Amino acid sequence: MEAALYAGLDFFAGYPITPSSEILELLAQRLPISGGKFLQMEDEIASLCACIGASLTGCKVMTATSGPGFSLMQEALGYAIMAEIPCVIVNVQRGGPSTGLPTHGLQGDVNQARWGTHGDHAIITMTASSHQDVFDVTVEAFNLAETYRTPVVLLFDEVVAHMREKLTLPAPGEVPLVERLKTSVKEGVDYHPYLPREDGRLPMSDFGGPHRYNVTGLVHDMWGFPSTDPKMVYELLRHLVDKIENRAGRLARYKSYFLRDAEDILISYGSSARSARHVVEERRLRGERIGLLELQTLWPFPGKLVREKCENARSVVVVEMNMGQVMASVKQAVDRPDSVFLANRIDGVFITPQDIMNILRIIQGRGV
Amino acid sequence: MEAALYAGLDFFAGYPITPSSEILELLAQRLPISGGKFLQMEDEIASLCACIGASLTGCKVMTATSGPGFSLMQEALGYAIMAEIPCVIVNVQRGGPSTGLPTHGLQGDVNQARWGTHGDHAIITMTASSHQDVFDVTVEAFNLAETYRTPVVLLFDEVVAHMREKLTLPAPGEVPLVERLKTSVKEGVDYHPYLPREDGRLPMSDFGGPHRYNVTGLVHDMWGFPSTDPKMVYELLRHLVDKIENRAGRLARYKSYFLRDAEDILISYGSSARSARHVVEERRLRGERIGLLELQTLWPFPGKLVREKCENARSVVVVEMNMGQVMASVKQAVDRPDSVFLANRIDGVFITPQDIMNILRIIQGRGV
Amino acid sequence: MEAALYAGLDFFAGYPITPSSEILELLAQRLPISGGKFLQMEDEIASLCACIGASLTGCKVMTATSGPGFSLMQEALGYAIMAEIPCVIVNVQRGGPSTGLPTHGLQGDVNQARWGTHGDHAIITMTASSHQDVFDVTVEAFNLAETYRTPVVLLFDEVVAHMREKLTLPAPGEVPLVERLKTSVKEGVDYHPYLPREDGRLPMSDFGGPHRYNVTGLVHDMWGFPSTDPKMVYELLRHLVDKIENRAGRLARYKSYFLRDAEDILISYGSSARSARHVVEERRLRGERIGLLELQTLWPFPGKLVREKCENARSVVVVEMNMGQVMASVKQAVDRPDSVFLANRIDGVFITPQDIMNILRIIQGRGV
Amino acid sequence: MEAALYAGLDFFAGYPITPSSEILELLAQRLPISGGKFLQMEDEIASLCACIGASLTGCKVMTATSGPGFSLMQEALGYAIMAEIPCVIVNVQRGGPSTGLPTHGLQGDVNQARWGTHGDHAIITMTASSHQDVFDVTVEAFNLAETYRTPVVLLFDEVVAHMREKLTLPAPGEVPLVERLKTSVKEGVDYHPYLPREDGRLPMSDFGGPHRYNVTGLVHDMWGFPSTDPKMVYELLRHLVDKIENRAGRLARYKSYFLRDAEDILISYGSSARSARHVVEERRLRGERIGLLELQTLWPFPGKLVREKCENARSVVVVEMNMGQVMASVKQAVDRPDSVFLANRIDGVFITPQDIMNILRIIQGRGV
Repeated sequence: MEAALYAGLDFFAGYPITPSSEILELLAQRLPISGGKFLQMEDEIASLCACIGASLTGCKVMTATSGPGFSLMQEALGYAIMAEIPCVIVNVQRGGPSTGLPTHGLQGDVNQARWGTHGDHAIITMTASSHQDVFDVTVEAFNLAETYRTPVVLLFDEVVAHMREKLTLPAPGEVPLVERLKTSVKEGVDYHPYLPREDGRLPMSDFGGPHRYNVTGLVHDMWGFPSTDPKMVYELLRHLVDKIENRAGRLARYKSYFLRDAEDILISYGSSARSARHVVEERRLRGERIGLLELQTLWPFPGKLVREKCENARSVVVVEMNMGQVMASVKQAVDRPDSVFLANRIDGVFITPQDIMNILRIIQGRGV
Repeated sequence: MEAALYAGLDFFAGYPITPSSEILELLAQRLPISGGKFLQMEDEIASLCACIGASLTGCKVMTATSGPGFSLMQEALGYAIMAEIPCVIVNVQRGGPSTGLPTHGLQGDVNQARWGTHGDHAIITMTASSHQDVFDVTVEAFNLAETYRTPVVLLFDEVVAHMREKLTLPAPGEVPLVERLKTSVKEGVDYHPYLPREDGRLPMSDFGGPHRYNVTGLVHDMWGFPSTDPKMVYELLRHLVDKIENRAGRLARYKSYFLRDAEDILISYGSSARSARHVVEERRLRGERIGLLELQTLWPFPGKLVREKCENARSVVVVEMNMGQVMASVKQAVDRPDSVFLANRIDGVFITPQDIMNILRIIQGRGV
Repeated sequence: MEAALYAGLDFFAGYPITPSSEILELLAQRLPISGGKFLQMEDEIASLCACIGASLTGCKVMTATSGPGFSLMQEALGYAIMAEIPCVIVNVQRGGPSTGLPTHGLQGDVNQARWGTHGDHAIITMTASSHQDVFDVTVEAFNLAETYRTPVVLLFDEVVAHMREKLTLPAPGEVPLVERLKTSVKEGVDYHPYLPREDGRLPMSDFGGPHRYNVTGLVHDMWGFPSTDPKMVYELLRHLVDKIENRAGRLARYKSYFLRDAEDILISYGSSARSARHVVEERRLRGERIGLLELQTLWPFPGKLVREKCENARSVVVVEMNMGQVMASVKQAVDRPDSVFLANRIDGVFITPQDIMNILRIIQGRGV
Repeated sequence: MEAALYAGLDFFAGYPITPSSEILELLAQRLPISGGKFLQMEDEIASLCACIGASLTGCKVMTATSGPGFSLMQEALGYAIMAEIPCVIVNVQRGGPSTGLPTHGLQGDVNQARWGTHGDHAIITMTASSHQDVFDVTVEAFNLAETYRTPVVLLFDEVVAHMREKLTLPAPGEVPLVERLKTSVKEGVDYHPYLPREDGRLPMSDFGGPHRYNVTGLVHDMWGFPSTDPKMVYELLRHLVDKIENRAGRLARYKSYFLRDAEDILISYGSSARSARHVVEERRLRGERIGLLELQTLWPFPGKLVREKCENARSVVVVEMNMGQVMASVKQAVDRPDSVFLANRIDGVFITPQDIMNILRIIQGRGV
């Protein structure tokens, strides 16, 4: 993908799975040209593990998969969260559960992205509805992964992945890139991989470089050595969660259309947002006060943003292609959960503006 | 475990991991004696896959693991959900994410049990706070797995797993057991593995028996053959979710203490509920109108039960050892989410009655 | 103290007690230089009595003590209230009850300042959180004591008393000073010490001056002579209480930070307000709608101010270093007492912003 | 007083003050006869200090005074609270503040009894409206002082003190008496004066007896030696407050008249309750659903009792002879503070049934 290369991708490891295979195919060609490494691994577990290892040596890394592969990655994902390894994981969702619907898109992996690995944790998850936005959030995913030393999940869907659309590439340097923060500790001096600087960031030292240190999935101290001291446990868990959840506002990337005076607000994301935007533009022409909030950051869920935008709305309709995963988060965020409705499809067919309009009629009490 | 044997366990496959290893050790001895099969596998993925295969041949199956192993099982778990394979999965939670705290208990895997595998789906998850209850919910887990052809997760925690306590075993036959519903279709006649009977149940036919049929993780028709027909997709997904979510009331297993006139209600589960119960009994002696709702069914979340029990409560305090996973579900269930509070510990130390009391003081506006 | 000298202090009598002794030491040097009298007395009872006598001769007077000394002064304090003698009493609170914690600060004497002496009465009590504010409220204390012929209690705490901080002194005359209102009744004409002027104020005549009159702690008539006439009793008691309680609004000195749109409001005073302010400023940076109402007048309690400021607040958290003395007054003032919480410490350790944040987390239902 | 002798009074020290002097006079005669010691001291401070010392030697002790004397005792009272010395202090209230109205009764010292000494603390305060009740609560005051190692204040008023009324003395042994709990620690073995037994009680050892130990008004450890350790400070303060406040229900002594179906409830205490009871009995004859809750325990304030009794009341009228001190506590206790009214007199004249009726008319909207 162009964005990953633009963002400075050094290393990609993956295993092909519909509908994400095109990413592998493209990068297998492009990455070696730009000096990066491409590895096809024996499965998805190995793919993410290879990325984690490569990241520790200083590379910007990415893997790509679809639902079943993402389920397989959950244990390694937890390791990357605990050990604070920057990496980007693309999940081009297909219909699930299990092998489900390989060639039809759904948006059913939203909650898995948040809760798929065990234990309290936090994670950043982004999505997009156009190729231009896919480019932008992908670059940002790399930036956030490096800034917060965290895995970032890119949750695309089959429709966006497989369509053709114009894409304007920014000039090199036009979009700011975040590079790995390296430690300034000199060789021979103790480097503490989990000792925060004053600004809260944790500088890294490339594995194989001058410093020796420990990396573990166990709860650990500032040296990276295992600890079960309650104070250490508490502080590490809070750190892992707070570094992301406390920045929900700053991490909230979104687009808004006609929200200022909207009485009825659609909330959507990914390919569904294309249909939702179509509905809004078409109904505005008819004078209806309808607007769209398109979420690009799904986790940490931008609850404050949603509450503020929906404060004066008569109804809030979440448009998505699953059984209401984002709708549940919206209900928790707003003051009047009873005014939140769901416009969805779950049969593997892309949700159309007409589908949304039909559901809107019913919500507005105008029947089918 | 006694309960699994009582419930008719035929087959166990697992891989040792603290703090669930005692289950393996015990069953390695006991299961062969009662005619069952015990397999130690090379990892957790293989363990669940072996269980799925054995279940298809007609066995009652179980595996046991802890958080990291449960994360590895997420892909196979999705397969069991999609293919509707009865099985019981024990997760003795430890501190997470990743390898986390092997020997200290937390309750951080509640949301993972619900959302760990990809795609919209549903699952049954139960827990317990005493050895007697562990026995009871384990027998029930086997019964529910067979009744609804579904994986059932038993989410225990380290404290309950490692304590010593009196256990009264019921006589054989005293607790009703649900046996596999076998098809009545005769050999040589077409058997449809996914054609529901009039009562909605799907009879099974042992693999290796007289019938040939297909089992797949793909969306499938009544023959078990893959299909992308939207109507088929819709009906299968709704069936998989509704067979469980629509029965949330019937599946809600719980205990209640002093709820009738309670002004302040604690909601807890697993080992935390032991401390919560202690608080309630002690404060009742002082005349406080406090009660406890101990949940044994975590998923499908018994929202209606929680709403009804908390209708007249001034405050609802969820006691758990994570960052508020059940609390979030409780907030969604009740009418006044602002009256829901969290009394928790996340440092790997067991939450005590005194911890709960200290937090209650602050919630009640009485400071430290 | 600079402020007392600025306000025109003529006479100080005291007995040293930690943590207020520095006031004595400083004034022992400074007061004689500016022409005032400094007396070290044999105990706290004598100290306040000496001040009362000196005030009657026309001096602006002050004493300073800590909790145990303030308890000893309660009987003389009642006399000053009943006889309407202007005086300023500084209580640098330490941990109590009894000799308690001489060198550690608490804020446990708030209710004593109001109710420490017997019988229905009223009193003015002020506090401050910085040296600049200490200066300002001290000058105001002298002004109010002279204006309303009443003792004024300055309730400081150990932290504010012992820290080092920049203080900008106003130029002489920059802050208006209230001087003793002397009677215009000529020598030889009857002077009624308790006969109010048209504006309600009671002019005084210096003891030892041209007029002879009676001063007593008994209920008295306008001559100062004892009376048990019910009408006289009623009117005197109402006068003593109403001259202060009816002016609660005008006497309410406070500071507010970010209250305009605050959803969560901290109320604090004295040194605790420093930590509260830190929390508010830090959380505002993160976009939280949190504000601070810092009370400088504690008695008469500014209930109307508190109710108005907290009208739209979701939660009100009183930050203080006692078991909730001001919190109880806040609960009485607001419309929804259930939304009032206490963030406190009572172990002699100064309450930090982190302490407040930890309690806020629990109050907001986010657990530890 | 008969009750004090019945309860086992060994030692009385006091200084005469109207209207409590009769107690001294009576005891000066009676106490030596029954083997006790009577001391007239030079002032009230010395009186309470002598009682504290005598109590430490194993005596049951009492002092008696009126408002100004009680103000003088506040510092020693704090010492008795901190050092946990059993003692009974009678305050026969007169009109205050200061010397006020020596021969006319008011009930203005209620809040002083709670908050007169500095620092967070707790105290038991009881009152009564008839000589029989004075006997009963006095015996109970001695019992509670010994049980909880605490000062107990008996807050009588001038009217009850000076009237003549029938009194039936129980036979010796008829009313159970609580005797000092002595330590079972043998001579030569370390005795810890502040080490609680399993049931929470602190056994005492008579000063001058076999054990040496420290008694201090400073915050102290279990040996009685000063400590500023935050954990120690926290636990001592909580102990001092909780041992009394947490038992508010058990300590609540009260009488109720016609409360079962009462729409209008009077709450009163002391001599005012005599008039209130007269009103209730007279209005019941006319068919009005009016009742009386007569409080005998004022502190810890029986808030839970008041809330429950007033749950269904249309109006709650507090009858007292001050500006509403108990009324403020009632307002805090009930669910609808707006339905709480005050029927009072503050002019030194005893409040009559007719006074209450006149105020009731106004409250009921029937004007004067």
